[in-house]
Amino acid sequence: MSQLTSISDVLFQKNGSEKTVSITKKKIENWVEDLFAWLFCKQGECSDVELFQQKEEALSLDLQLFLSQVGTPNKTLLADSFFNDLIEIHQDLLDDLNTILEFDPAAKSKDEVLLAYPGFFAIVVYRIANAIWNKGVAVLPRVISEYAHGKTGIDIHPGATIGKRFFIDHGTGIVIGETTNIGNDVKIYQGVTLGALSVSKDKAEEKRHPTIEDNVIIYANATILGGKTVIGKGSVIGGNVWITESIQAQTLVYHKSEIIVKSKNKFPEPINFSI
Amino acid sequence: MSQLTSISDVLFQKNGSEKTVSITKKKIENWVEDLFAWLFCKQGECSDVELFQQKEEALSLDLQLFLSQVGTPNKTLLADSFFNDLIEIHQDLLDDLNTILEFDPAAKSKDEVLLAYPGFFAIVVYRIANAIWNKGVAVLPRVISEYAHGKTGIDIHPGATIGKRFFIDHGTGIVIGETTNIGNDVKIYQGVTLGALSVSKDKAEEKRHPTIEDNVIIYANATILGGKTVIGKGSVIGGNVWITESIQAQTLVYHKSEIIVKSKNKFPEPINFSI
Amino acid sequence: MSQLTSISDVLFQKNGSEKTVSITKKKIENWVEDLFAWLFCKQGECSDVELFQQKEEALSLDLQLFLSQVGTPNKTLLADSFFNDLIEIHQDLLDDLNTILEFDPAAKSKDEVLLAYPGFFAIVVYRIANAIWNKGVAVLPRVISEYAHGKTGIDIHPGATIGKRFFIDHGTGIVIGETTNIGNDVKIYQGVTLGALSVSKDKAEEKRHPTIEDNVIIYANATILGGKTVIGKGSVIGGNVWITESIQAQTLVYHKSEIIVKSKNKFPEPINFSI
Repeated sequence: MSQLTSISDVLFQKNGSEKTVSITKKKIENWVEDLFAWLFCKQGECSDVELFQQKEEALSLDLQLFLSQVGTPNKTLLADSFFNDLIEIHQDLLDDLNTILEFDPAAKSKDEVLLAYPGFFAIVVYRIANAIWNKGVAVLPRVISEYAHGKTGIDIHPGATIGKRFFIDHGTGIVIGETTNIGNDVKIYQGVTLGALSVSKDKAEEKRHPTIEDNVIIYANATILGGKTVIGKGSVIGGNVWITESIQAQTLVYHKSEIIVKSKNKFPEPINFSI
Repeated sequence: MSQLTSISDVLFQKNGSEKTVSITKKKIENWVEDLFAWLFCKQGECSDVELFQQKEEALSLDLQLFLSQVGTPNKTLLADSFFNDLIEIHQDLLDDLNTILEFDPAAKSKDEVLLAYPGFFAIVVYRIANAIWNKGVAVLPRVISEYAHGKTGIDIHPGATIGKRFFIDHGTGIVIGETTNIGNDVKIYQGVTLGALSVSKDKAEEKRHPTIEDNVIIYANATILGGKTVIGKGSVIGGNVWITESIQAQTLVYHKSEIIVKSKNKFPEPINFSI
Repeated sequence: MSQLTSISDVLFQKNGSEKTVSITKKKIENWVEDLFAWLFCKQGECSDVELFQQKEEALSLDLQLFLSQVGTPNKTLLADSFFNDLIEIHQDLLDDLNTILEFDPAAKSKDEVLLAYPGFFAIVVYRIANAIWNKGVAVLPRVISEYAHGKTGIDIHPGATIGKRFFIDHGTGIVIGETTNIGNDVKIYQGVTLGALSVSKDKAEEKRHPTIEDNVIIYANATILGGKTVIGKGSVIGGNVWITESIQAQTLVYHKSEIIVKSKNKFPEPINFSI
């Protein structure tokens, strides 16, 4: 017992002087799920308008609690303003949903997209986190966006700006940085990174991530870097491409890799590996 | 209050006209975990055959509930048929498990594979979802497969066909599309995509994804695309390879990339980036 | 009913002869979260030293339960020894945390790193799992590390050795194998694999994974393989590089890929794909 006590003493003393935000991640994550369900009426909340309104009030009170926990003043005003934003966000999300339905041959129904499309879930969570981020709230938007990242492998910073009819399919490994600017009708596949070139902390206030104009398609595992990098309207970026400079509008960029095909008898170098 | 009410009114009206499937994802996800535990006797359910049977009945009743929620007729018959399938699936999964034990130097015991191998978990969930998919059930198999995707980063469409002794190790980023056909004794590493070339919705009924014949190994981050692409028996596909055409049997395909090694003093172009 | 019974009979008989470890993953996962919260005082446990000590005792008792479930002798001694280790681990983690704060332009506060950085979470869980692994405990460290893998997409084997001030940012797709040796002040980006070249089971006891010396940076999606592969001090490994041989100290290695830029009118080969 004396040993245990001394460990607690050491850690308690080390931690004691610092104040940390006291929020429950689990409660925020449940709030995100409930808000999603409420927005799209998934659990039958829409059967009765009064129940629907009560749910909204409960969601708003929870949000106000989180806002006060992260030290935001004017929590009631902010929460009202957020719920006001939801009218436009709801329409944007319906447009995102329809884009998936129109574009993906594997999508059979609206229900399937709502229930089983990680790309759609990530967009929903992004638009929610972004609205809260735009009100200058600390930490909370990042906890919300990280929840989607954990669930889907899609990491969209709440500070990014993303236009209408945004399409992500299988999204595992997608990273979209804080100062990224994405236009309308953009499609992004798994493993795409929209990142920064420089890492020095003093550039934290600059635009560090690329601009993607309207109607661009970026195929799997492409990497596009830099705050001054602009991918022009209507361009198509092939899989595995690595881009650090701007690309003109209506351009096709692809990666021509040399593939070597041999009889299996001669193994030229180690290509087989495991972990 | 009046403001809140008006927001609920707007969203309620927009959602109200549409009917959506009323299922609880959480309940389905718990069912998948319980079925997995029951199949492999992980929590001591196998200590007593009566408990084991009771658990089966509970699992069957839950399945019938889900089936009726997604609008499937003949739910009792379908559930019985699914549990019948489990005898063969159970044997297939034992074969999958033994393949991992035989092949992976890091695998120390059967327990470790059952408890801590995301690749095995993804295969278990795939074989369950695929059996339900093959009975023509809507939405449910996709909710089940998306659960494994969220947990493991491995995205196997329940419509894919996969043979015996399938091996996935670290699987983060694997995507296997709806009409993929995979033979026996195939091994796939992290980040591999078996995808479609064309995206137009009118090809939704065609075979859009590749065929992988017996004894093929596909190393990390390789991308193989197209419904007419066949990777012949016994071939080895190296890491990062991009393939859109068929490969003959017993072939070795690898990606010869030029690596430049320099003293660190001269930085030739931006290679350093963060997000 | 008779049909159901017969299925249970078949599976019961098949499973019955084998003994499996009887542990509850969920309980272990909650323990990891509680230990994390306790270590960094996130939920206000640090307001009172007595509460803090009580929490430590509860955490220790849970650990002893897990240890006995996986068949470890001397569970009390081992648990005491583990909590003793935590004093050093706690300091190492504070150093890891400060490295993220200093290095990542997007990191706004210590709270944000604690609550929303998957890379930091993965490092915390690794240092915990590694301490238990080093005491020769079976299965449990792997269940712990797989929990972090599932949540973050970052797969660090508890057997790996990792030095101080380790930095992972967006980490989706990172794989660090069992016998990897990583020095101090190393930074690793998303999708990096530190893997083994050979897969034969008889090499399970050899060093199969690379050594990364101090101050190395490895950019996104690089793959470094082999137990004899050493990346020398201060080297920089560019994105997408594939390395199977040692690299001298202070070296820059990058992948020069040919990028083809064309007007979009002429599509040269299929670059567009979906799943």
